[in-house]
Amino acid sequence: VITLNIDIIISADDIKLEKVKNKTVLIIDVLRATSVIITAISNGCSSVIPVVTVEEAFEVAQKDRGNCIILGGERRALKIDGFDCSNSPLEYTKEVIGGKTLVISTTNGTRAIRGSIGAKTILIGALINAKAAAKKIINIGDDLVIVNAGTYGQFSIDDFICSGYIIDCILKQTNAVISDIAKTAQYIYSENTDINGFVKFARHYNVMKKLNLEKDIEYCLKKDIVRVVPEYKDGKIEHPLKEAL
Amino acid sequence: VITLNIDIIISADDIKLEKVKNKTVLIIDVLRATSVIITAISNGCSSVIPVVTVEEAFEVAQKDRGNCIILGGERRALKIDGFDCSNSPLEYTKEVIGGKTLVISTTNGTRAIRGSIGAKTILIGALINAKAAAKKIINIGDDLVIVNAGTYGQFSIDDFICSGYIIDCILKQTNAVISDIAKTAQYIYSENTDINGFVKFARHYNVMKKLNLEKDIEYCLKKDIVRVVPEYKDGKIEHPLKEAL
Repeated sequence: VITLNIDIIISADDIKLEKVKNKTVLIIDVLRATSVIITAISNGCSSVIPVVTVEEAFEVAQKDRGNCIILGGERRALKIDGFDCSNSPLEYTKEVIGGKTLVISTTNGTRAIRGSIGAKTILIGALINAKAAAKKIINIGDDLVIVNAGTYGQFSIDDFICSGYIIDCILKQTNAVISDIAKTAQYIYSENTDINGFVKFARHYNVMKKLNLEKDIEYCLKKDIVRVVPEYKDGKIEHPLKEAL
Repeated sequence: VITLNIDIIISADDIKLEKVKNKTVLIIDVLRATSVIITAISNGCSSVIPVVTVEEAFEVAQKDRGNCIILGGERRALKIDGFDCSNSPLEYTKEVIGGKTLVISTTNGTRAIRGSIGAKTILIGALINAKAAAKKIINIGDDLVIVNAGTYGQFSIDDFICSGYIIDCILKQTNAVISDIAKTAQYIYSENTDINGFVKFARHYNVMKKLNLEKDIEYCLKKDIVRVVPEYKDGKIEHPLKEAL
């Protein structure tokens, strides 16, 4: 049985290099960036390039015209002008994304991924791949910092309870030493294993409901429907079987 | 009925000026800096000067020899060499502190107070004065940011549940709009109104137990035994009736 330390950073704004160095970082943005990335990769997307600005997205697409590019993402939860897809995971079907490169720009998720550069391993997690993420983290065996993307620099309840679920999965299989914030997340999950009952308190959940994005919410709050745990490396997230695609 | 926004900053390391500007800040360091300051003021201490370093404490004491000075504080939860008192609130009796100036240096609490300079009002809170703090915050009527001192830059469960209790008190009397993290703190409190049951998960609680500081813990976890809500202004916290002391 291995022992690993587990901590949480509650928003993209609070990432510090010394907190992630030499560790496994798991980026979580349940509503919806990491749910989108996991879905895209799971549906055969060959690689995902997270960018911060819209201009950067167009530049990358311009440079890389040899590959089939899909531009995806959001600003204020809505599709970006000139982009192919919004930030709805339901749009990233096998037909749309299979074999293609996704250039994605989202408000919080992309900043969290970019901010974590310097970690030993950067993995992409959400509720839809939570158990698989826990398994991969244990296999790697390094200390874990879960980075919650949050919403505009603020703590977000949906990311926090997802962190709690993943910590709960890890604790069932290891002697993890968890920080006070990691314990709090795991407690919140253990009292609300249905997820929905607590996520309804999240501000961003209510913003999305007002935008009629209930189907996205329903999908993103499903546990463990995907087995892939994407890894960010050298500026992109590649499909684990890219050569075979 | 007034409406105010409530947010929490989870550690002294995460304070940013734009988050506290024009707001009421309530500093919380349950174990033990703010519990000490509240106790000292309540027992007739004429003013408290929080300093960051031990050197600064000696300098301030040197300059201000006209007043009766007590040097207090801790490093790694223990008394500092050459100081009069440790960071135990039980030492700050009327006999010891009445009419005197307390120069205090603590690891986390002092940094949280100093870091909050720039807020409109800076109040000192803990479990022992929670209800009084809620009342004062409502009377002032500005948006509230609760700053948890935390432990060495980390989120601390004891400060978080105390924040939750104070938010719960405020919500009973106002239409406060609370952030996701404030909601989470209030939820934790509402599920653990006895405080002790959840605080036992705190790392710092367990460090203190190992140092045989159970009596301090027991005192600091008492709710609402003090009515005074000290205010930090111009580098110090003065007794509200200083002229009459």
